[in-house]
Amino acid sequence: MTYANVGTLGAAPGKRDELVAHLTQRSMELADAGCLLYEVGVSDDRPDTVFVVELWTSAEAHRASLQLPAAQASIAAARPLLSGEFGGFDFSVVGSPLRD
Amino acid sequence: MTYANVGTLGAAPGKRDELVAHLTQRSMELADAGCLLYEVGVSDDRPDTVFVVELWTSAEAHRASLQLPAAQASIAAARPLLSGEFGGFDFSVVGSPLRD
Repeated sequence: MTYANVGTLGAAPGKRDELVAHLTQRSMELADAGCLLYEVGVSDDRPDTVFVVELWTSAEAHRASLQLPAAQASIAAARPLLSGEFGGFDFSVVGSPLRD
Repeated sequence: MTYANVGTLGAAPGKRDELVAHLTQRSMELADAGCLLYEVGVSDDRPDTVFVVELWTSAEAHRASLQLPAAQASIAAARPLLSGEFGGFDFSVVGSPLRD
């Protein structure tokens, strides 16, 4: 069942755009691990926050992806760019009005 | 610029699945209005909540869609299914690691 993970990441002062650049670096591993969609964004309303919407083939695929060496390296590299504030939620996709 | 709208909708007691059915009714109007993705879901952790992730061609397209007669009718029909609790956030998409 498709799994959705939606999050907000607080950026360290002055580091938002660097965090965006980090999160949008082309990654073949993500698709191979079952990532269907990974959109990164910003909002004028919350200038120190980076927003992420992810869709995965399953919750298990998402969980497993976090253990990949490339993911571990990416998380370590992101650490200095983060404020430590996180938000968001996750859920199981059950349908869409755009398809039967 | 692609616009993301992510939300949680509290369901009236016992109405979650009816709210899901309502939100996933096939809608041609959505795609015509610029909706690129509209995923509806649930989570065991929050059994009275319905989750929605939407991507639109622009924030303006999303805003304009809410004024369409079909959207107004849909919102009116959903009202008895809602608890009145809403959450979420919106943002402008700036990139994805899945594409250049």
